[in-house]
Amino acid sequence: MESARKLVNGTAAALPDLTTERFPHLERGDFAVLADRHLRFFEDLLGTEAVLTDPVKVAAHNIDWDRHARGRGSVVLLPASTQQVADVLAYCNREKLAVTPQGGNTGLVWGSVPVFDEIVLSTQRLNEILHFDEVSGVLTCQAGCVLGDLDAYVRKRGFIVPLDLGAKNKCHIGGNLSTNAGGVRLVRYGSLHGSVLGLEAVRADGTVLRLMNTLRKDNSGFHLKHLFIGSEGTLGVITQVAIQCSVAPASVHVLFLGVPSFPRVVDAFRASRAALAETLSACEMMDAECMSVVVDKLGYRHPLQSDSPFYVLVETNGSDAQHDREKLAKLLQSVRDADIATDGVLASSEAEMHTLWEMRLRIGKGLWADGCLYTFDISVPLKMYYDVVPELARHLRDNGRPVTRVCGFGHMGDSNLHLGVTTPTFDPELLEWMEEFVYDWTSKRCGSVAAEHGVGFKKNRFVHLSKTAPALSVMKGLKDLMDPNGILNPYKVLPLGLTGKSC
Amino acid sequence: MESARKLVNGTAAALPDLTTERFPHLERGDFAVLADRHLRFFEDLLGTEAVLTDPVKVAAHNIDWDRHARGRGSVVLLPASTQQVADVLAYCNREKLAVTPQGGNTGLVWGSVPVFDEIVLSTQRLNEILHFDEVSGVLTCQAGCVLGDLDAYVRKRGFIVPLDLGAKNKCHIGGNLSTNAGGVRLVRYGSLHGSVLGLEAVRADGTVLRLMNTLRKDNSGFHLKHLFIGSEGTLGVITQVAIQCSVAPASVHVLFLGVPSFPRVVDAFRASRAALAETLSACEMMDAECMSVVVDKLGYRHPLQSDSPFYVLVETNGSDAQHDREKLAKLLQSVRDADIATDGVLASSEAEMHTLWEMRLRIGKGLWADGCLYTFDISVPLKMYYDVVPELARHLRDNGRPVTRVCGFGHMGDSNLHLGVTTPTFDPELLEWMEEFVYDWTSKRCGSVAAEHGVGFKKNRFVHLSKTAPALSVMKGLKDLMDPNGILNPYKVLPLGLTGKSC
Repeated sequence: MESARKLVNGTAAALPDLTTERFPHLERGDFAVLADRHLRFFEDLLGTEAVLTDPVKVAAHNIDWDRHARGRGSVVLLPASTQQVADVLAYCNREKLAVTPQGGNTGLVWGSVPVFDEIVLSTQRLNEILHFDEVSGVLTCQAGCVLGDLDAYVRKRGFIVPLDLGAKNKCHIGGNLSTNAGGVRLVRYGSLHGSVLGLEAVRADGTVLRLMNTLRKDNSGFHLKHLFIGSEGTLGVITQVAIQCSVAPASVHVLFLGVPSFPRVVDAFRASRAALAETLSACEMMDAECMSVVVDKLGYRHPLQSDSPFYVLVETNGSDAQHDREKLAKLLQSVRDADIATDGVLASSEAEMHTLWEMRLRIGKGLWADGCLYTFDISVPLKMYYDVVPELARHLRDNGRPVTRVCGFGHMGDSNLHLGVTTPTFDPELLEWMEEFVYDWTSKRCGSVAAEHGVGFKKNRFVHLSKTAPALSVMKGLKDLMDPNGILNPYKVLPLGLTGKSC
Repeated sequence: MESARKLVNGTAAALPDLTTERFPHLERGDFAVLADRHLRFFEDLLGTEAVLTDPVKVAAHNIDWDRHARGRGSVVLLPASTQQVADVLAYCNREKLAVTPQGGNTGLVWGSVPVFDEIVLSTQRLNEILHFDEVSGVLTCQAGCVLGDLDAYVRKRGFIVPLDLGAKNKCHIGGNLSTNAGGVRLVRYGSLHGSVLGLEAVRADGTVLRLMNTLRKDNSGFHLKHLFIGSEGTLGVITQVAIQCSVAPASVHVLFLGVPSFPRVVDAFRASRAALAETLSACEMMDAECMSVVVDKLGYRHPLQSDSPFYVLVETNGSDAQHDREKLAKLLQSVRDADIATDGVLASSEAEMHTLWEMRLRIGKGLWADGCLYTFDISVPLKMYYDVVPELARHLRDNGRPVTRVCGFGHMGDSNLHLGVTTPTFDPELLEWMEEFVYDWTSKRCGSVAAEHGVGFKKNRFVHLSKTAPALSVMKGLKDLMDPNGILNPYKVLPLGLTGKSC
């Protein structure tokens, strides 16, 4: 297994504990156990090269991106067509074999890896771009296309994919839809529920649901595609996608501000939205701790003259560089005059913009240098957005829980905070202790315990903190309707035996 | 009933035929018949003033906006709270009484009026604005608020509701969500699936599903709100809404072009999108026939120096008037240079902009002056967007079907065409004959037979032309899950005994 360790997240870190060892009371579902006859069926159907059983090759498909979870799957299937996906699922449904659909496996909630011995159904060979309409800007492709590849493809034709996130060069568009990925430019380009026009998904019983609408307006019956966007592979396996691309901006600018307090960060966001309006494409924040990490651990040069308690990155996507620069210069002047920002710089080259973005996007990478990183992905109303960071730090200190660092960064435009805590080594008991605190805190503020990363296995114990009992009951009804044998991504998303919140 | 006629659509036109007379073979569902004891229950629950039984008052709630459909309902209920809606539905579900939810009753597909004797459940007293967050721009309100009132409310606070349509001063926001209304600025502000953050809906059995999320990112479990957006009241009754408002544009401009051919209309759209990018808020088209209607029937002055086969209205919503005017002037010059537009005018005042928009939005009103209007609301790829207009005209002529006028107008940015045909008086047989032609034509081009107005009762015979058999099967499963007795808006949306298309 030594070489398997190297496959995981590109590092030689120790293998994580098996998920079943960390959660010993979890019961395996009433599924069949994989047998030789099943493997022979899959090899006959897909060809032997599409049925991975070599433990080294299978290992990377069992381990989550953040290296906190490890499943016990022993086979990975690589279908190359919708029909093959349908045939695999029809068989698994008949035989009661559990299946974990997997895209680029970059999720952060242990949603795309097995818990027990589920079969991994990878979309990596479903990687064909099917069509791009240069008039409408609608791209159709298979689910296993890598997001960054799609973006590069449409950029050559004057468009961009309306979704951008750190994992873009590895994540699959099908996984993006399944997890309803948000990313850094949602404030401008909106959610996938708005930009995905159609999709094709295979139900648990192998039925192909072809919903490949390519038109922006379609009210011909129930809007079934939304069942699959954000349900993390528990209601069906997405095999194709039709997405409305946006016109590529002719001009991109980045402004970086040093801000003296969190209320001024909110003011900076409001001022940016008012001044930049339709050109505002991102408004990101990071605290001083995050800045010290990227400077000290990753070696970036501090972009401003002086330290500040908070930093805000403002990006514009516009169609006229001179107009955009004028708007930004006015904004910079006004936030300085109003003491919203004490320092600020407007990137003067593409390289400078790239570096400023890298500093924001590589915070997680920097935090890992402390040894181990625990992240929490929550949404809360803006005025209380940052409160959880000092409150958790105090709570840890008061309870004698030593940690290396507590910090916050995230998307101001979407009220989405990424809370990061580091320790020298992974401590599952500490993680559980913090989860209780953070999710309870979030729930009491009517926030979401799963903002953009989803629920997966990591958070299914906490879903009831953001969903009422009647909502959980409808979720259960949908699961029973779409997947009566429960073979699709078991143990994920749906909580067991919980009652839901009342607010 | 004389005075009832005046209540309908503000005109004194003759009452339409009863829907059950026009479709004599349609069978009434197995529902209870309203009895005095039911009325007494409703009066005890809601108060007598909230239970309308006066035939004159009830009549307007039985007749659809376009005056083509008339139901046989004899009671209208006006609950004033979510709990009252829940109590009404729980009772109706127990007693197997069928219910038609109704908002502003401005729909165009006979979805908000009874077919047989369904009880009308009106949202008109659920009209309270609950909260507006001036930082996030999120508005929460009850379902019966009028769209135009909401827009006026948030405009005073620097925002706009991201939905605008002709019926804005009468339609209810709950009805907008139920029908997934699109409107004229979808190209800029996106669909309701993207901008609605949360909602509250009551299930057929009276269970309240509180999904009032107010945050832009929430992936805590299945995205249940989408079940209700666009399902036209067949899966539940929407009682509250949380919607992300957009920053009000500081500057609005309208450009009106005369265009020599339909391919040049497509070019005008592409040029506008490229030149105006993030500021483009609408791109509407109308043909010469539409222009002659608004000039001859409504008395508007022709806005250009000369007649053209087509006209395009381009609107920008921007944050800097000077920047926006510069972009528009460049665009006007470039479309003239490229012979895309033969004539054009940039509105120089708010009054001029208003007039140009009125000419576009009142086409329907002008067409009614011919006597009777039949409209078809379809989506098709842009390159074949207009083809159906001359093809239907030829088909009518070749088959000896005399009509007064055939014309087309609609939203270029969304590939959404409104096809209009007029005759002196309503001819249901002609309508059915044209429906067969238009929807078959649309289906063969993989378009949508119900672009933005929905299915209602008018189009449920044609849903299978835009949905496959497996999709129809999932629709049926969802209906059975959410409303096992089928009491919610029966005879609407879901087709009966149809097989679905294969493409």
